[in-house]
Amino acid sequence: MTTEEKFMALLKKMSAYSEALNIMYWDMRTGAPKKGISTRSEAVGTLSSELFKMSVSEEMEGYLKKLGDRMESLDPVMAKTVAVVQEEFDQSKKIPADEYREYVVLSSKSESVWEEAKDKVDFEMFLPYLENMISSTKNLINYWGVKDGNPYNTLLDKYEPGLTTDIIDEVFGQLKETIVPLVKKISEKNNQPDTSFLFAQFPKENQKVFSHEILKQLGFDFEAGRLDETVHPFALGITIRDVRITTRYAENDFRSAIFGTIHECGHALYEQNIDLELEGLPVADGTSMGIHESQSLFYEKFIGHNENFWKYNFDLMKKHSPEQFENVPLDDFLRAINFSKPSLIRLDADELTYALHIMIRYEIEKGLFNGDIEVKDLPQVWGDKYEEYLGIRPENDGEGVLQDVHWSAGLFGYFPSYALGFMYAAQFKAAMLKDIPNFDELCLRGEFHSILDWLTEHVHRFGKLKKPLEILQDATGEGLNAKYLADYLFDKYTKLYNL
Amino acid sequence: MTTEEKFMALLKKMSAYSEALNIMYWDMRTGAPKKGISTRSEAVGTLSSELFKMSVSEEMEGYLKKLGDRMESLDPVMAKTVAVVQEEFDQSKKIPADEYREYVVLSSKSESVWEEAKDKVDFEMFLPYLENMISSTKNLINYWGVKDGNPYNTLLDKYEPGLTTDIIDEVFGQLKETIVPLVKKISEKNNQPDTSFLFAQFPKENQKVFSHEILKQLGFDFEAGRLDETVHPFALGITIRDVRITTRYAENDFRSAIFGTIHECGHALYEQNIDLELEGLPVADGTSMGIHESQSLFYEKFIGHNENFWKYNFDLMKKHSPEQFENVPLDDFLRAINFSKPSLIRLDADELTYALHIMIRYEIEKGLFNGDIEVKDLPQVWGDKYEEYLGIRPENDGEGVLQDVHWSAGLFGYFPSYALGFMYAAQFKAAMLKDIPNFDELCLRGEFHSILDWLTEHVHRFGKLKKPLEILQDATGEGLNAKYLADYLFDKYTKLYNL
Repeated sequence: MTTEEKFMALLKKMSAYSEALNIMYWDMRTGAPKKGISTRSEAVGTLSSELFKMSVSEEMEGYLKKLGDRMESLDPVMAKTVAVVQEEFDQSKKIPADEYREYVVLSSKSESVWEEAKDKVDFEMFLPYLENMISSTKNLINYWGVKDGNPYNTLLDKYEPGLTTDIIDEVFGQLKETIVPLVKKISEKNNQPDTSFLFAQFPKENQKVFSHEILKQLGFDFEAGRLDETVHPFALGITIRDVRITTRYAENDFRSAIFGTIHECGHALYEQNIDLELEGLPVADGTSMGIHESQSLFYEKFIGHNENFWKYNFDLMKKHSPEQFENVPLDDFLRAINFSKPSLIRLDADELTYALHIMIRYEIEKGLFNGDIEVKDLPQVWGDKYEEYLGIRPENDGEGVLQDVHWSAGLFGYFPSYALGFMYAAQFKAAMLKDIPNFDELCLRGEFHSILDWLTEHVHRFGKLKKPLEILQDATGEGLNAKYLADYLFDKYTKLYNL
Repeated sequence: MTTEEKFMALLKKMSAYSEALNIMYWDMRTGAPKKGISTRSEAVGTLSSELFKMSVSEEMEGYLKKLGDRMESLDPVMAKTVAVVQEEFDQSKKIPADEYREYVVLSSKSESVWEEAKDKVDFEMFLPYLENMISSTKNLINYWGVKDGNPYNTLLDKYEPGLTTDIIDEVFGQLKETIVPLVKKISEKNNQPDTSFLFAQFPKENQKVFSHEILKQLGFDFEAGRLDETVHPFALGITIRDVRITTRYAENDFRSAIFGTIHECGHALYEQNIDLELEGLPVADGTSMGIHESQSLFYEKFIGHNENFWKYNFDLMKKHSPEQFENVPLDDFLRAINFSKPSLIRLDADELTYALHIMIRYEIEKGLFNGDIEVKDLPQVWGDKYEEYLGIRPENDGEGVLQDVHWSAGLFGYFPSYALGFMYAAQFKAAMLKDIPNFDELCLRGEFHSILDWLTEHVHRFGKLKKPLEILQDATGEGLNAKYLADYLFDKYTKLYNL
């Protein structure tokens, strides 16, 4: 066997371990029996540790060295694969295998405890696990190295390479300049639409059927994926041909399931449309959390909240919950689903105030990792910040600091990518309009394939073959520009509320 | 670390791989997206191969040698664990790792193809896979060694140690002496009960709810297990605290789901009640297929078909399908669910004719491995034997040779254990009656815990710490005795049909 072949064989073996771990993860989240969780966590720890050992093995090091020495002679996919694996190797090599294993076991348990703590609205129950997750993560940062004098930068860089607190502070600042005055004007205007029908009973089984119908419209391939139900929705690309999403059904608020499903669908379409040629390689994955989020938000916001999408789908939805929408004209429906008002739950937040939820989490994470905030004070800090930014305060930790899965799973530095993704999405949309000027007309006809084709052509198919800003530059012809999102929000809400 | 500790660490690592493989298997059977199956099969092959390598590694050999040299000084569980692992080591050591890997990949694919072939009623589609499975198995037999001059004995011994064609020919002969005259008498008697209501509509969702209720009654622990739906029902012990079963819902024949669920429940109770002290060890498993089947058949036949069970549960079932049972007295219901008539599908067969289905499969397997039967002739051979033994012939391969999953998964030599399990079960029941003379009264009250406790005390808790015949001897005070089953069938059917 040539070095390339041996290298590929090792990667293939590693991808088998990833598949197993992904399925175990999915299983734990979608209904694994409770008593089996602790053994399962141990098993996940063992396999992760084996996978980690392979990724930092001398065998791997040898292949990377040999192939790295003659990058020019490798075909482009192989060359990029070597580069991506080399980067991960350099990062991983810094963490001792035992500590990584402990970290994985801890995060697996922590996530299960979080789920129970959230159910029971008991922050104290989750507290020691969160403290442990943070100190373990700080420990990892020490191995990775502090970036630009700020340990939190090290975390940001893992999800969106190149991102720092300096950049985020600036971009979030620009957005704030648009959002804060808009939120203020809306509250002064005092012309909120009637939204009562949103909270009328919509049977769960019917929401399920409608969610499946919407997924089919948008191009989700059910032969290469499935939809399930969880407390906290997620999308999981096990392989390109097995991409699973979950949603949360609330009978008294269909928006949770419908928009949640559309959001996760955006993630899933990204994973399902990576070039099949990359299957089994580490480059067969989203290139960054921000780009990933740009796809989910593109679908959730620019399609799922588009008036033409609902001109096509409103009657269909009515069939699934006839009484609820009996006397609701489409215009009232559109104003209701696009209404903006400060709220407590990020996942239910409207698109205007959404970024404020992100900013709060961003500032808390910075504080936790710079030592300005202690975990035990989180409920207090959380409440204070919600009061400051949104003028409201959670009554309990279930609708406060316990609402998100991220910290329980060690995903610190991840939140900013949600807002960044929204900026990318707005920028993609602007570029797409040049190629597909009849975007709204397509939504009106329920024809989403050319939109999906554009995203596949410019974003999905590359996987990790391109870096985030390379994707953005090649697709839109310019670097990151917060203006597109700011303009979109300004125009939309000025019109909706007659500001 | 001591040798014991190192040995245990290796076993724990191996059990993590088993957990992953079991979950992947469960996932593939319960709804994994179709397009992902081929990659999944490769991943299963890779992890199985790694597990296999560990089981035959020099490291393992070293521990076994060291511990085997001082068995007397080991605690009993450790000593038995060493013995069980040593046996498996000796068996496995004979198979080259690459060939084992190929075999696992093939059986995984073969099982998926079978499922599709069964759906499409297309034996030709499955034919090359089955041929391949048989030649691969013959290849494995050559490595293991032919037992007592008959390659099929080698397979029998894997599922029920000590069993040979000589013994089976004899025991099946005894049973035949009872069954064949009974079947003949019943057909001559011409007093079959009305069974039409069995085939009336029973909504699937209601069957689901009822199945869950029955499982709870019988003591199935839903915090350590779950119930799902598949084409071919199965029970899978992932760990002692995660035991999953599946069932098949047929809206026009509730017996498929209800008795199928009770059957798989018997398997599950065995796995859930193995001593927790054994968790993670290779001895935490059923001791043989026959003993496993004795538990499922005990529940399916001696509880699920017991008239007192239905005196307690008939009204409950009526609630789930009121019209169907509106004018059905309990006695008619009991005669209907216990009616005996030759049929084509093993899983739907009544308990009297059931063993004939097994005998047919046993004879075909013997023929396939002794070279007397060719795979391409199976539909013909199958039909001929059904005509000879049961007087009926399948109209297509879906209700014929394609009906069982076993051969697609390489489970040759497994079928006889079903009939053997029935004999064990009848023998356990006779012994249990000495300790629990009010067995029928307990069924009448829906109190199954002392029955479960007896089985746990005498069978479940030991896992593989005892061999099948040791379990039987200790629990019943004698060796295998076909008389108990023969007597049970004779008494029951003589009474039911006034013979």
